[in-house]
Amino acid sequence: MDVVLVMPRNPLNIGAAARAMANFGFRRLTVVAPYAPTWREARSAVGAPEILLNAVETATLGEAVAGATLVAGTGTLTYRKPEQRVVKLPDLAPLVAQEMARGGRVAVVFGPEKHGLTREDLSYCHILVEIPTDERQPSMNLGQAVAVCLYELAARVDCGARPDKADADLTAAPSGRLDLLSGVVEETMRAVGYSPRTMQAANRHDLRLLLRRLTLSERDLRRVLGLFRRILWRLRHATENSGKTG
Amino acid sequence: MDVVLVMPRNPLNIGAAARAMANFGFRRLTVVAPYAPTWREARSAVGAPEILLNAVETATLGEAVAGATLVAGTGTLTYRKPEQRVVKLPDLAPLVAQEMARGGRVAVVFGPEKHGLTREDLSYCHILVEIPTDERQPSMNLGQAVAVCLYELAARVDCGARPDKADADLTAAPSGRLDLLSGVVEETMRAVGYSPRTMQAANRHDLRLLLRRLTLSERDLRRVLGLFRRILWRLRHATENSGKTG
Repeated sequence: MDVVLVMPRNPLNIGAAARAMANFGFRRLTVVAPYAPTWREARSAVGAPEILLNAVETATLGEAVAGATLVAGTGTLTYRKPEQRVVKLPDLAPLVAQEMARGGRVAVVFGPEKHGLTREDLSYCHILVEIPTDERQPSMNLGQAVAVCLYELAARVDCGARPDKADADLTAAPSGRLDLLSGVVEETMRAVGYSPRTMQAANRHDLRLLLRRLTLSERDLRRVLGLFRRILWRLRHATENSGKTG
Repeated sequence: MDVVLVMPRNPLNIGAAARAMANFGFRRLTVVAPYAPTWREARSAVGAPEILLNAVETATLGEAVAGATLVAGTGTLTYRKPEQRVVKLPDLAPLVAQEMARGGRVAVVFGPEKHGLTREDLSYCHILVEIPTDERQPSMNLGQAVAVCLYELAARVDCGARPDKADADLTAAPSGRLDLLSGVVEETMRAVGYSPRTMQAANRHDLRLLLRRLTLSERDLRRVLGLFRRILWRLRHATENSGKTG
């Protein structure tokens, strides 16, 4: 399982997140676009755990979760109308266990301290995990939120369990493969003049969410990708032909 | 439910504990023998939650939990051979729910950052709650440990449930009443020359644990207390009589 911190600002929180990972036996940390001085300070802190020294740094959340087949964003719902399935933290373990038994890879994503994950960040998430908090004080400290989520998963998912012998074709397509398909579908949309230029960003967002709702297997994905590539080829060919005959 | 912090040293941790309480809907905080400058700093922090301002301060853990019928100490078992029942955090909720349904009062106790609860502290606890952590990094940050415990209880105990109509006589005797009985039994031990002076502290410790293992009801407690008071009276009387006849 991967833990992903998006744009953390406070070195103490980064250290606390790494410590909670060590406490609950998680090893793989990815940090997305950290504020450089913060990141330097956190990694050079006395007694910085190995997890911080081995952490992966990426420029975007898309890269950070490219290999994951189930991306779980965390947050409270107070200021947000979620666009994907919401799972309360006490109900998360069975989903994660199922995904891991299938040979999938799970990433749990935490947003910046101030405002949490943005709508854009959340479009990379298959599910939104809600930590049930009191409505008078819903917003948690980052280090504590990480501790609570990892405690729950460590206590209730057997992370050492070996995956079932699964047909690789039937496992869920990883996030990066969905992004590849997104790109080809988008190219097709442009090629056929599907919508005005001003709508393209909104379409990209909706498409990203749609593909995550479909839970495509790797085989499904290859088929759909093949279809859209064929469409694109034909469109280009038709244009060339019409150019020739015109 | 009460949250009790024993001798916290770091104002950030006190603030983090209070914030986790607010996140999970807990209101009653007691702080035992805090380091004075730390406590002053934590309470005067900008945005210190109401919980800190309303916190109760006591000199001893005995006072802090005097009203509790189930005292749960927290910690790891790495350096300690526990003298009472150990309950893993994921198994704690049913015990707490049962105690609250009976009309009992539960206190969860957290030790100082450096070494956790002492053997003396633990002698006031009916159970020791173990947060299951990785053996390579078992020791948790105080604020994160509080968050994890309170998350677990908030998610899995209905703290708003009304207690069953219980016979007050049959509910567990609160910790302070057990201490009263301890005192009378100890006085009796001294009166009859039960053991040498050098053993008195060890006896007191064992007696405190023994009384918590017995899960005496308030009625049980009154009976045993009555018996030992009668014994003491008779011993004094016998001494006076022997004095008169001597």
